[in-house]
Amino acid sequence: MSLIVHKYGGTSMGSTERIQNVARRVAKWHRAGHQMVVVPSAMSGETNRLLGLAKEISDNPDPRELDQIAATGEQVSVGLLALAIQKQGLKAKSYTGWQVPVRTNSAYTKARIESIDDARVRKDLDDGYVVIITGFQGIDEHQSITTLGRGGSDTSAVAVAAALKAEECLIYTDVDGVYTTDPRVEPNAKRLQKITFEEMLEMASLGSKVLQIRSVEFAGKYKVKTRVLSSLTDPDMNLTEEAQSGTLITYEEDKTMEQAVISGIAFNRDEAKITIAGVPDKPGVAYKILGPVAQANIDVDMIIQNASHDGMTDFSFTVHRNELNKALDVIKATVQPEIQAREITSDPEICKVSVVGIGMRSHVGVASQMFETLSKEGINIQMISTSEIKISVVIADKYMELAVRALHKAFGLES
Amino acid sequence: MSLIVHKYGGTSMGSTERIQNVARRVAKWHRAGHQMVVVPSAMSGETNRLLGLAKEISDNPDPRELDQIAATGEQVSVGLLALAIQKQGLKAKSYTGWQVPVRTNSAYTKARIESIDDARVRKDLDDGYVVIITGFQGIDEHQSITTLGRGGSDTSAVAVAAALKAEECLIYTDVDGVYTTDPRVEPNAKRLQKITFEEMLEMASLGSKVLQIRSVEFAGKYKVKTRVLSSLTDPDMNLTEEAQSGTLITYEEDKTMEQAVISGIAFNRDEAKITIAGVPDKPGVAYKILGPVAQANIDVDMIIQNASHDGMTDFSFTVHRNELNKALDVIKATVQPEIQAREITSDPEICKVSVVGIGMRSHVGVASQMFETLSKEGINIQMISTSEIKISVVIADKYMELAVRALHKAFGLES
Repeated sequence: MSLIVHKYGGTSMGSTERIQNVARRVAKWHRAGHQMVVVPSAMSGETNRLLGLAKEISDNPDPRELDQIAATGEQVSVGLLALAIQKQGLKAKSYTGWQVPVRTNSAYTKARIESIDDARVRKDLDDGYVVIITGFQGIDEHQSITTLGRGGSDTSAVAVAAALKAEECLIYTDVDGVYTTDPRVEPNAKRLQKITFEEMLEMASLGSKVLQIRSVEFAGKYKVKTRVLSSLTDPDMNLTEEAQSGTLITYEEDKTMEQAVISGIAFNRDEAKITIAGVPDKPGVAYKILGPVAQANIDVDMIIQNASHDGMTDFSFTVHRNELNKALDVIKATVQPEIQAREITSDPEICKVSVVGIGMRSHVGVASQMFETLSKEGINIQMISTSEIKISVVIADKYMELAVRALHKAFGLES
Repeated sequence: MSLIVHKYGGTSMGSTERIQNVARRVAKWHRAGHQMVVVPSAMSGETNRLLGLAKEISDNPDPRELDQIAATGEQVSVGLLALAIQKQGLKAKSYTGWQVPVRTNSAYTKARIESIDDARVRKDLDDGYVVIITGFQGIDEHQSITTLGRGGSDTSAVAVAAALKAEECLIYTDVDGVYTTDPRVEPNAKRLQKITFEEMLEMASLGSKVLQIRSVEFAGKYKVKTRVLSSLTDPDMNLTEEAQSGTLITYEEDKTMEQAVISGIAFNRDEAKITIAGVPDKPGVAYKILGPVAQANIDVDMIIQNASHDGMTDFSFTVHRNELNKALDVIKATVQPEIQAREITSDPEICKVSVVGIGMRSHVGVASQMFETLSKEGINIQMISTSEIKISVVIADKYMELAVRALHKAFGLES
């Protein structure tokens, strides 16, 4: 008998009818002999409704009170799901984050899990209960409720699976797995049977929004076998068939598996580029530019500094498109008087396209194949950045779909 | 500087706009130099919405899970009210029942408060915070959330006031106090400036639904000065004026106050009468009849046993109208084979009308004046029951309004 954690998203919990489908699926797994822990999200729309009420009162609400309010969405979900599972004839008990307890730091609205006490849950499991635990939330040292931020229920589920040393964590969502790229851009995209955590991290952070990135980090760190699969399949479907659907995120490279060089093509059009041209190339210049930007709480993604000519260099970086104006204000007010750059330009009409694959480690020529493919399509590369398992380029926004499709084909990812 | 507890009902918390009015009122009291604790109900309709979701899933839901679900309504309220009070420029902090903690027994959906720990709240008050505490709920020894049942927020407020030894507990509601009778039945009904707990208990249990009866018991037991007043008045109204509006429920008879013999006329049309005629008048017969009824969890209100004739007596009692059929089933199945009564009859078309007043103690003739008044109107009295401060009669349902108006006039209660 193994312990399995199921996580269900807001769409799966979107109505009492759907909640009863979730209960049927959980009951099927329980009857197959598994100890079951379920982590549901709030009913779809509920978190937005709650935060909307808060916003009607305050433009800048106290984050502790926001968490007090927002955490109720998941609390309702666990109670309803417990009732639905009981109706399936099983024993079921719901827990909020503080009842487990799931201990976090005090960073309200974006707290981090510090520890999970498994004693009460394990006792209930041993007594034959299905245990339902709120996603998205915990409790801090002041006995205040904290939330983990948007998508935090994925992280809760993986963290609970890690704490309970679960056999597997199944994340049921409205897509049936991780694809080689977004099927809306490339209809020939195919579902991956397996992907490694490292690849998943690169895919997730680059915009393939299947799983919250922190949950993937967690799964990798604690070696939790995690599977993404669809909650839209028949809840009574054969268990073996169900286990084979979706995408397994593994914490080790599968030597037996036919290893493609590239696992997928990720993209992100939420960024904007800032270039500071004609900067004196002296020690400390990068800090002088990025220090004030970081101070203003603006996240920077790619950073490029070119080789210098005549003691001068160009410095480029990307920020979230929504923060472009804020970043430019900081640079003009604080950075420019200090560094006296020749020119400051910006471009919001860019996108980032990345090829991701653990196989890249042992294959040369991925970069050159990528650049050749883009060149053949007449797409100019504005910035390049590489890591061990991904290569990202910044190109003009308008070429995004073309670039994704061309690369998808060039690396043989089509189904 | 005195400590004041405010309680706001669901209507007062019905929208973010109304919540901001509540915040203005609380801020006014705080600025006048009071330490403030606020106990709000869930936003109107929210508890019904939540219980409705549960009912969609299960006809007979697990009460622990129901409480897990229902308690969220008040949790949202305290968070929103904290934000609104902060917007008034004050420090504010919200607490759920378990955060205080408010300890209760484990009678889910109708738990009773056992103790309230005042340490955290008192510290926050001393630090200048307005403290907002969820009504309706607490935590039991298993760390499960409990609720106190419908109207439980009144009880929470009075219990918190008792635990903190508050100067006064102000219950803001959608009526402006306790009236001599229901103004919908007698337009000349007038608001009472003061009423004693004993009278209030009789009024509340008899159908003048201003305050939850348990809150009045609590207020009497712990001598909490409690005032019922309207939340519909201008939140910025003068403090002295506001304190004079509403009805003060006192725990001692005010000797200086002009004491009317009768404080009010209460009525209740939710009952039905069962008469068991021709029962052998032997010891134990009352128990033989009411034992099985109590066993079936049916609440009995009035019980009358007449003097016997020829060793036989008639036995009448009233139950809630919704439980009449259930009670008759029990009597026919269990009681009748045992006692062999001559006849069992029932009548759902009755009502109970009561005159209530602490002044009755020192005045004779209240009963005879009541019976004379009803007689003059040609109203037949079916049952009579008396206590030290009230006289209740059961009459035909159709005469209720007539009886209430006639008694209201006869006892000089008109405004």
